[in-house]
Amino acid sequence: MGFQILDGGGVATPAGFQSAGVVAGLKRSGAPDLALLHSTVPATVAGAFTTNAFAAAPVRYDQHVLDGGGKVRAVIVNSGNANACTGGQGDRDARTTAECVAQLLGVAPGEVLVSSTGRIGVPMPMPVVLNGARLAVAALAAGDEAGARAAQAIMTTDTRPKSLAVELVLGGRTVRIGGMAKGAGMIAPAMKLQPPQATMLAYVATDAAVSRAALDRCVGQALDQSFNRITVDGDTSTNDTLLAFANGCAGNPVLETDSPEFPEFFAAFAFVLARLAREMVLDGEGVTRFVELNVTGAASDAEARTCAEAIANSALCKTAWFGADPNWGRILCAAGYSGAALDAARVRLDYEGVPVVRGGMDAGTPEKQLVEAISRREFRIDLDLGVGPGAFTVWTCDLTYEYVKINADYHT
Amino acid sequence: MGFQILDGGGVATPAGFQSAGVVAGLKRSGAPDLALLHSTVPATVAGAFTTNAFAAAPVRYDQHVLDGGGKVRAVIVNSGNANACTGGQGDRDARTTAECVAQLLGVAPGEVLVSSTGRIGVPMPMPVVLNGARLAVAALAAGDEAGARAAQAIMTTDTRPKSLAVELVLGGRTVRIGGMAKGAGMIAPAMKLQPPQATMLAYVATDAAVSRAALDRCVGQALDQSFNRITVDGDTSTNDTLLAFANGCAGNPVLETDSPEFPEFFAAFAFVLARLAREMVLDGEGVTRFVELNVTGAASDAEARTCAEAIANSALCKTAWFGADPNWGRILCAAGYSGAALDAARVRLDYEGVPVVRGGMDAGTPEKQLVEAISRREFRIDLDLGVGPGAFTVWTCDLTYEYVKINADYHT
Repeated sequence: MGFQILDGGGVATPAGFQSAGVVAGLKRSGAPDLALLHSTVPATVAGAFTTNAFAAAPVRYDQHVLDGGGKVRAVIVNSGNANACTGGQGDRDARTTAECVAQLLGVAPGEVLVSSTGRIGVPMPMPVVLNGARLAVAALAAGDEAGARAAQAIMTTDTRPKSLAVELVLGGRTVRIGGMAKGAGMIAPAMKLQPPQATMLAYVATDAAVSRAALDRCVGQALDQSFNRITVDGDTSTNDTLLAFANGCAGNPVLETDSPEFPEFFAAFAFVLARLAREMVLDGEGVTRFVELNVTGAASDAEARTCAEAIANSALCKTAWFGADPNWGRILCAAGYSGAALDAARVRLDYEGVPVVRGGMDAGTPEKQLVEAISRREFRIDLDLGVGPGAFTVWTCDLTYEYVKINADYHT
Repeated sequence: MGFQILDGGGVATPAGFQSAGVVAGLKRSGAPDLALLHSTVPATVAGAFTTNAFAAAPVRYDQHVLDGGGKVRAVIVNSGNANACTGGQGDRDARTTAECVAQLLGVAPGEVLVSSTGRIGVPMPMPVVLNGARLAVAALAAGDEAGARAAQAIMTTDTRPKSLAVELVLGGRTVRIGGMAKGAGMIAPAMKLQPPQATMLAYVATDAAVSRAALDRCVGQALDQSFNRITVDGDTSTNDTLLAFANGCAGNPVLETDSPEFPEFFAAFAFVLARLAREMVLDGEGVTRFVELNVTGAASDAEARTCAEAIANSALCKTAWFGADPNWGRILCAAGYSGAALDAARVRLDYEGVPVVRGGMDAGTPEKQLVEAISRREFRIDLDLGVGPGAFTVWTCDLTYEYVKINADYHT
């Protein structure tokens, strides 16, 4: 690939970006809970949001801003409160937050976006948020450490921050792409490109000059190879959000969808999203195993996806993975009720390349060998339905005691 | 109601029925694993089966028999092996089992049905099954105790047998309806009337004389008020089966769908199924709470069902119930991603009649009161989507450590 990973990089690694992560006081724990990402110059923005009918106030607010088509300067992100199911007051609170940050930064109110994650249905404690906004603006800084602080502040049940930056040469100029994300629970993004599907939150900042159309294309295509293929628990949040900012500070000629350099930029952009998505699953609530599940031989890609998601969200499959139980019957069972067309007599299944099922029946591999294959922290499952050319890949995980523990007693 | 419950009753309580439950040797534990239900005279039969694309060999076999339209004499049920994903050998094994039992009983091969539940993908140990069949035929007996033994033998991870009988007067004759079921895991029946959807297994025996059409009607209508409204884990098994037998030994005039007594018979029949379905959820794997979830105000009954099932199968909702966490945001979130139409500004939610959400927002009831409502072993949730007349009720349960434990290490 024509890019390299920058050790320790994040959203404030690309030129012209600053970020901050501060303690506003939204989390009872006293942990950082407010992040700010700021571009020193107006940035092109593209995004994708949850398709949940109870889309949170900040999601609706951001969609409205993105629909306007203008450039933006910042996004403020709080953890500890989702500002979802909060009615008209929630909408006013999202707007007030954006306006406050805009005023503090000296930019137009329509140039600031807002994201929230945390408990649903609790009114935003606005004095706390607005005071935190002042702290965040005062703390803005460029560089890796500032990015790390922002990545820390957007966490909820995440056990570690997820942050990344890459660098590539584009049109003779050095270009950087930084990203951060939070995930952990309520993860089954179903985002569509503006108006789209994503309580994972993810932010990508690049100093490349990219047209809105090209940035939209990057987000749309990379989603399907990253966040839209992951599922932790099958719950699609009210707050899922992906935002990408391109501020042009690298000085490259503006990248268009038909630029010769587009594929190279896209590859780097998609890598950042895919890495963050993968990290999100690995840090899913209580996760002990990462599973890449490839469904092939389906009637269509859509059916392959339906089948893959049924398996990935099956409590019986997920608990079997936790126990390293090669019980392939549960996988075939889930495929069978998914509604995807399949030819039972032609179905094939492999664990890490080891034959498990051939012709819809036990392939005869000794159980010990199967247990070994799925006892790894990360393993791959290939299922072929035997009817057509459709294919889809999901990244998922096991279901553990720890998941139940975390979610039976969740108060941010 | 015009019927009364017979204490300790079961499938061999109605006249002309015999049953047995024996140790064939399919379960490593040495627990009873083979049940036989036998009618001393030919019985009308109706049934419903799983819609899973990997429907097990015995399911396909039984469907074929029921398609023939004739009367039957018996069903043999084994636990410990599902005979699913076992290819042509599985089909032959199901047939051989039926033929063996028919020969032992001195009836025609097409008069015997077969059911299996247990691990998927393992060839049936036929010498064990056929030897068990001989033991079961030899052990056949009428009465409550014989019914209890059969109910015991069909269990897998169930912690207790589920058995019931009722009595009513029909056309001047005393009529009895007995039933037994097993459930526990992989429970999200999606059965349709012949050819239909059901690893819950359920068997109903009645000595009433009932036409095939009337028995079909009873099964179809009662399913929607019983097994098709329950979900433990959202996994629809390869083996779900419901069979109802009516042998006419009570001597009543044959009941038709338009008989004046049909509604009364149906009420008793539906009660037996509903009670067994409810018992199945209460005895679901690791279950500590039973939840009745009523969704109303949906655009259609189908959308109400979609919404109810999304909530009932949400790992986040189910773990919150385990923790008695009134986190209603998770319920609205699941409704929001279910795809059912809703008016966020008109959504209402109640726990045990206590207002939780009004107009899509917190109703202001003190949290303590909500915790109290959902700390009961059984509680009711009412959700109104605010858009139409559609309604659906599901019976479901919480997701617990114990569920994970049972399923992370399941080898019958």
